[in-house]
Amino acid sequence: MNCIQKEIIISKKKRGFHSITDEIISQFPDLENIQNGICQIFIKHTSASLTINEDADPTVLLDFESHFNEMVPENQAYYKHTYEGSDDMPAHLKSSLLGSSINMPLTDGKLNLGTWQGVYLCEHRNHAGPRSLVITIWGN
Amino acid sequence: MNCIQKEIIISKKKRGFHSITDEIISQFPDLENIQNGICQIFIKHTSASLTINEDADPTVLLDFESHFNEMVPENQAYYKHTYEGSDDMPAHLKSSLLGSSINMPLTDGKLNLGTWQGVYLCEHRNHAGPRSLVITIWGN
Amino acid sequence: MNCIQKEIIISKKKRGFHSITDEIISQFPDLENIQNGICQIFIKHTSASLTINEDADPTVLLDFESHFNEMVPENQAYYKHTYEGSDDMPAHLKSSLLGSSINMPLTDGKLNLGTWQGVYLCEHRNHAGPRSLVITIWGN
Repeated sequence: MNCIQKEIIISKKKRGFHSITDEIISQFPDLENIQNGICQIFIKHTSASLTINEDADPTVLLDFESHFNEMVPENQAYYKHTYEGSDDMPAHLKSSLLGSSINMPLTDGKLNLGTWQGVYLCEHRNHAGPRSLVITIWGN
Repeated sequence: MNCIQKEIIISKKKRGFHSITDEIISQFPDLENIQNGICQIFIKHTSASLTINEDADPTVLLDFESHFNEMVPENQAYYKHTYEGSDDMPAHLKSSLLGSSINMPLTDGKLNLGTWQGVYLCEHRNHAGPRSLVITIWGN
Repeated sequence: MNCIQKEIIISKKKRGFHSITDEIISQFPDLENIQNGICQIFIKHTSASLTINEDADPTVLLDFESHFNEMVPENQAYYKHTYEGSDDMPAHLKSSLLGSSINMPLTDGKLNLGTWQGVYLCEHRNHAGPRSLVITIWGN
């Protein structure tokens, strides 16, 4: 078994959900060095997150943003952590609902995703910078 | 260390939450080949998901379905991705809220779950087919 | 590659969100035995969960509790699993929304978290006992 790890930077994105599958594969060609195993991606931030979902129709990405804004609204009376802006506390909540890491199987040296699956970067802040990800792969 | 990976098919389930712990163990007897490590299960779909929760009282499974329908309703005015049916976009959202993979420790060649824990397949579509899972285990 | 696994007990916490990063590091000094790899923590319970989020301002922890109580209310008419108390079914739902395991990269023998990130134990019951976690680390 082998284990390879690398930190990459994903370019600044506007608030919303973005497919980054191609950006990951192009920045991490080492994927083909593991035949059977796992690819794990971790985001080193608390107001952006990662998830796997439909990577075909771009309206899915828009609907994710609309629904998460409904489920985790800004300016709730019960928020105490407000001094970084009205988008900040909702960003933390959305991050934990979606999660800070994803796992995908590696099979025959490639991401073994379903036909419609892709990796989303979920940017929950109005004005964020680039985001740091740590990619770790392991297996045979 | 060793790493073993296999793709299995879970039979078609109706919409709702289903315990599949036994179905997984019976389809993947290789679990006993890893003494200490991890079992990871990944679902290759964007409208069904996996989670770990109470595996004793079947009303918990029903309450999960009721609550997720409340928290992620169908026919919201802000949904744009609607052409695959009113259950489709909520299915994508529920999938990302619950997640496409689960991790469980393997200890002494067995899943090291808590007393009440089991694996749920969460089927979010009204009329789905069988679902493909990739199981990967690694460790000593 | 190597893989090390240990079960630890986290002392009883009151209902709410608690930073346990230091408690984990002090109970599991073996972290430094893996230079590059992953640390995975699994909670063996169905009414408490784990997440990674902001570990600086304690009001974030309070806002998590407030928001999860709003998003997953007690005493909903559709709950059937009610005999263990009004906090029980919401606890199961919150656990699956947040998840029963977290993954963090290990780099140079340390948790490779972002500047503001820490590990939360999310205690969803009114009167819970200590909680069992299984920590597994692997890598080079």
